[in-house]
Amino acid sequence: MLDTDTIGYLAATFTTTAFIPQAWLTWKTRRAEGVSLMMYSIFVVGIALWLLYGLLSHAWPVVVANVITLMLASFILLMKIVYK
Amino acid sequence: MLDTDTIGYLAATFTTTAFIPQAWLTWKTRRAEGVSLMMYSIFVVGIALWLLYGLLSHAWPVVVANVITLMLASFILLMKIVYK
Repeated sequence: MLDTDTIGYLAATFTTTAFIPQAWLTWKTRRAEGVSLMMYSIFVVGIALWLLYGLLSHAWPVVVANVITLMLASFILLMKIVYK
Repeated sequence: MLDTDTIGYLAATFTTTAFIPQAWLTWKTRRAEGVSLMMYSIFVVGIALWLLYGLLSHAWPVVVANVITLMLASFILLMKIVYK
């Protein structure tokens, strides 16, 4: 059977991958109309808190997932603000 | 200072809250054109894996966050399929 951390890294791969098409689409089209500023602002704060939680509880899959997701979500949020 | 679990529950509140406007908008408008089927399919699998990771590592904030996010993301995915 898969161990807990392997399941965590697998989970991280899936939830992180899900944000790549959005980041790519926003970058390519230079449009972010379909992206909610409120949603991404709340989300970025939440991801930063998950990162802190992962660091404090030494949950490395949580740390890795949230570092990458924080970069992608911040990038989408930044483009939303820049291309407004 | 806040303890680790409190930070986790706070993180859960933020990342879960971020999905409510999308679920509400899709339900209200009965349209899901702006939602990517591929993104939500990958995301739902990832969230289910995070839930399993949380259960196996007894990380309760991770469990609570992912139960709620799984319901919201599955609901959005279901509407995407139904309203296609």
